[in-house]
Amino acid sequence: MSTSSVNIACLGGGHGLFQTLLAARQCDPTNISAIVTVADDGGSSGRLRRELDIIPPGDLRMALSALSPEDDNGQLWATTLQHRFGGTGALAGHAVGNLLIAGLAEVLGDMQAALDQVTTLTGSRGRVLPMVNQPLNIEAEVAGLDDDPRVMRPVRGQVAVATTPGQVRRVHLLPDAPQANPRALQALNEADIITLGPGSWFSSVLPHVLVPQIVDAISRSDALRVLVLNLSAEPGETSGFSVERHLHVLAQHAPKLRVDRVVVNAYMQLSGSERNHIQRAAAQLGAEVVFDDVCMVASDGLELNRHDPAKLARVIRSLHDEWVTAR
Amino acid sequence: MSTSSVNIACLGGGHGLFQTLLAARQCDPTNISAIVTVADDGGSSGRLRRELDIIPPGDLRMALSALSPEDDNGQLWATTLQHRFGGTGALAGHAVGNLLIAGLAEVLGDMQAALDQVTTLTGSRGRVLPMVNQPLNIEAEVAGLDDDPRVMRPVRGQVAVATTPGQVRRVHLLPDAPQANPRALQALNEADIITLGPGSWFSSVLPHVLVPQIVDAISRSDALRVLVLNLSAEPGETSGFSVERHLHVLAQHAPKLRVDRVVVNAYMQLSGSERNHIQRAAAQLGAEVVFDDVCMVASDGLELNRHDPAKLARVIRSLHDEWVTAR
Repeated sequence: MSTSSVNIACLGGGHGLFQTLLAARQCDPTNISAIVTVADDGGSSGRLRRELDIIPPGDLRMALSALSPEDDNGQLWATTLQHRFGGTGALAGHAVGNLLIAGLAEVLGDMQAALDQVTTLTGSRGRVLPMVNQPLNIEAEVAGLDDDPRVMRPVRGQVAVATTPGQVRRVHLLPDAPQANPRALQALNEADIITLGPGSWFSSVLPHVLVPQIVDAISRSDALRVLVLNLSAEPGETSGFSVERHLHVLAQHAPKLRVDRVVVNAYMQLSGSERNHIQRAAAQLGAEVVFDDVCMVASDGLELNRHDPAKLARVIRSLHDEWVTAR
Repeated sequence: MSTSSVNIACLGGGHGLFQTLLAARQCDPTNISAIVTVADDGGSSGRLRRELDIIPPGDLRMALSALSPEDDNGQLWATTLQHRFGGTGALAGHAVGNLLIAGLAEVLGDMQAALDQVTTLTGSRGRVLPMVNQPLNIEAEVAGLDDDPRVMRPVRGQVAVATTPGQVRRVHLLPDAPQANPRALQALNEADIITLGPGSWFSSVLPHVLVPQIVDAISRSDALRVLVLNLSAEPGETSGFSVERHLHVLAQHAPKLRVDRVVVNAYMQLSGSERNHIQRAAAQLGAEVVFDDVCMVASDGLELNRHDPAKLARVIRSLHDEWVTAR
């Protein structure tokens, strides 16, 4: 199969999107568009959004770094973008790339122009697009924070939601139902393959499907739409979540969302009935489930909680082959 | 005259070196080496040297910006390097270029490699070389801070020296007599034209002649060596200084220093006897004085306290013509 005349659009944020973009690069497409969540409020990103009133740059920076080519220049800049200042001073913890993106955005007066300038710097083929052209917040309804388990409390901010000891029931964006970045919509419209996930479910994946125009663009697309599930539940926001619960949560937040395939790691110890549950949950989204080996394995044989880009790329290429053949 | 097969080395720091480098670029030489003081302890530079224990990047950044070519890429990066974050937060006042230089220096483990990477980024022909490969401090003996005018008090740090209300008598470096950057010495050895100044006399110009190997390299060179004097005395460190006092101070701090020409702005209101004094002071350094118009003039005719790069370039080219013809 050749994906050499193919456009891929990858939605997500953080480390999950990073791995997906590495996989997308291995599909050797014509173009990759990284569509990135903008709701982070923690760490270097959170400090910059509060201090400079900008879209939090951290998830954008990680995507820029993932798209950097393997040559010396690309890898020097990938490393430099990701490098964090140490020590105990005012800069401690800031990623160099976040500061560079923030500076370029102020000089150019436009975040997209700043991101495009960094891709020129790294020599990347792809493009990094904020899902929305303004900083957002997420707010969750969380159970289990009160003596009375029926009481739901609002928890605001990505960090607070990701680390709540309670059970997240629902999230919404602030402001609610924001306008999508038109360039992100264009990338979705031109895509032959769309991926969503993996990543922190409530803070990196769900925000995309809380933007009505993005749900519409995905659902109406005739691209191959692949939802990549997490390898395991995350401590905090999805603590104790089963695989199908991840799917139910997505369908609950975006009933109109339609995808074609859900990629579940085959290494998971799943019984036949669990597989049936997962397939029924995926059917809510109009999707078939693909069980395949997509897990990174350390040299000592330990399964890591991270997708292996080469394995994920093989699955995506193979699904796209079938998709093209069937049409 | 053609300076197209000529190497120029410019010593200084801050805004003075910035203007000289613009002038050097207009001479269209084969190569420009900016040899830059490393004793700044104020502002963004001072915060970074204290927080990250690095050579203060501010003077280096200004030189990188001055060397950036006129094309879109060069000017975008020149502007971005110089851009300072505003507001009232932890980043307020930091120049983007200082943060980028600091980040690259940490990633590459070498300040020179970081500076060379930025010149690649901007597309500059020239090279920026710290005069010494470690951060330095300056300490001054200052009179007039005590009731008894004979009492001299030590004042330490570039900012403190530059703003002292007393009279600076002498400065020295901490550590004293440091090793020069070998690449700076090589640039001086290969130079056909060497410039020193203009700039804050005690904090940007004198530090160079307090490095014994740099004084030796300048004094033994058969390049055309041009000392460019300031257009006026600066409030603070050279408050009330006459032109010849600038020269006396230099000779006092570096008795072995030899230069060929001293460029004094012809706009200055100087009597015949004042000119004689200046010529005698220059002779201490082995130099002849050139009175010429090198001052930037605003569109309303106001003389600015800044060298005009085109005028300074014309003087340097003309002096080099005479120099080559006479040999």
